[in-house]
Amino acid sequence: MNFAMHEAVEVLERTPLLLQHFLSGLATGWLTCNEGEDTWNAVEVVEHLIEAERTNWIPRLETILQEGESKPFPPFDRFAHLNGHKEQSLAEKLQEFTAIRQQNIARLKELVDPALHLEMTGLHPAFGSVKARELISTWVVHDLTHIAQIVRVMAKRYKTDVGPWKAYLGILQDR
Amino acid sequence: MNFAMHEAVEVLERTPLLLQHFLSGLATGWLTCNEGEDTWNAVEVVEHLIEAERTNWIPRLETILQEGESKPFPPFDRFAHLNGHKEQSLAEKLQEFTAIRQQNIARLKELVDPALHLEMTGLHPAFGSVKARELISTWVVHDLTHIAQIVRVMAKRYKTDVGPWKAYLGILQDR
Repeated sequence: MNFAMHEAVEVLERTPLLLQHFLSGLATGWLTCNEGEDTWNAVEVVEHLIEAERTNWIPRLETILQEGESKPFPPFDRFAHLNGHKEQSLAEKLQEFTAIRQQNIARLKELVDPALHLEMTGLHPAFGSVKARELISTWVVHDLTHIAQIVRVMAKRYKTDVGPWKAYLGILQDR
Repeated sequence: MNFAMHEAVEVLERTPLLLQHFLSGLATGWLTCNEGEDTWNAVEVVEHLIEAERTNWIPRLETILQEGESKPFPPFDRFAHLNGHKEQSLAEKLQEFTAIRQQNIARLKELVDPALHLEMTGLHPAFGSVKARELISTWVVHDLTHIAQIVRVMAKRYKTDVGPWKAYLGILQDR
């Protein structure tokens, strides 16, 4: 086990900043490319991260702390973001993600005393019993997953452009 | 083909900023974790990026523009960075990467007129004939590859901590 609450927060704090600095001002071509039908571009990934802030991490954590295993987590629709947000600019989405993440980190610190609450459990609809510590670790890895996804999707935009170097660039084959 | 010089530069400019904002101040545990023997941690990836700025991209581009296919590229040792830089702090390494990247982008703009030079070719020791455009595209994808590597390596630090969620987190299986 490597989890430590303050280190998890270090990553959670940095993700919105990273996305702001990396995505702001990029050409449309970088922001709208994807990996083919039913895959997400960078903007859709940001929308998904906002949706997860709203409906996944903190609501589930509250369920663990307040309900234990007495009732399962509220459902989380991983594709919900594809039906909303369309009218916002990327800058607005990045600001929204930054703001809601800040609120959620404050709420996390308020809810969870690492000495007391990390081993508390809730009922995941597919996995059964899961711990608060596992949920917070997953929050962190979920961020890292989607940062990796954004850079992979962007890399694939140059799949043909790199010519023979494709053979050395494993990211172009990843999924 | 998707390559456009000014869009390639957008990514090349952002990589040092992204790494500064993401890695600065992280706990040692995040910065020193790796994927096992003979794999790189985040700091070693930064060292590799500095080495590539010094000895790969611009020297190869100069060879294309000045020598064409008359002689092969100077060799690039992908592991050279593992023998140096050890005495610098991460902050110093990030500053060095930022500075040398800025210089190299300036040099790129000085060397390459997109209307004239992108189709010029050089001799790669393994691939044979390669174009300036392919080299610059590879520079971009190489950045994205190593950003993805850093976040993947960090994600794997929580491989056990996420508990059953591991099943949903493909990044934990990637290499």
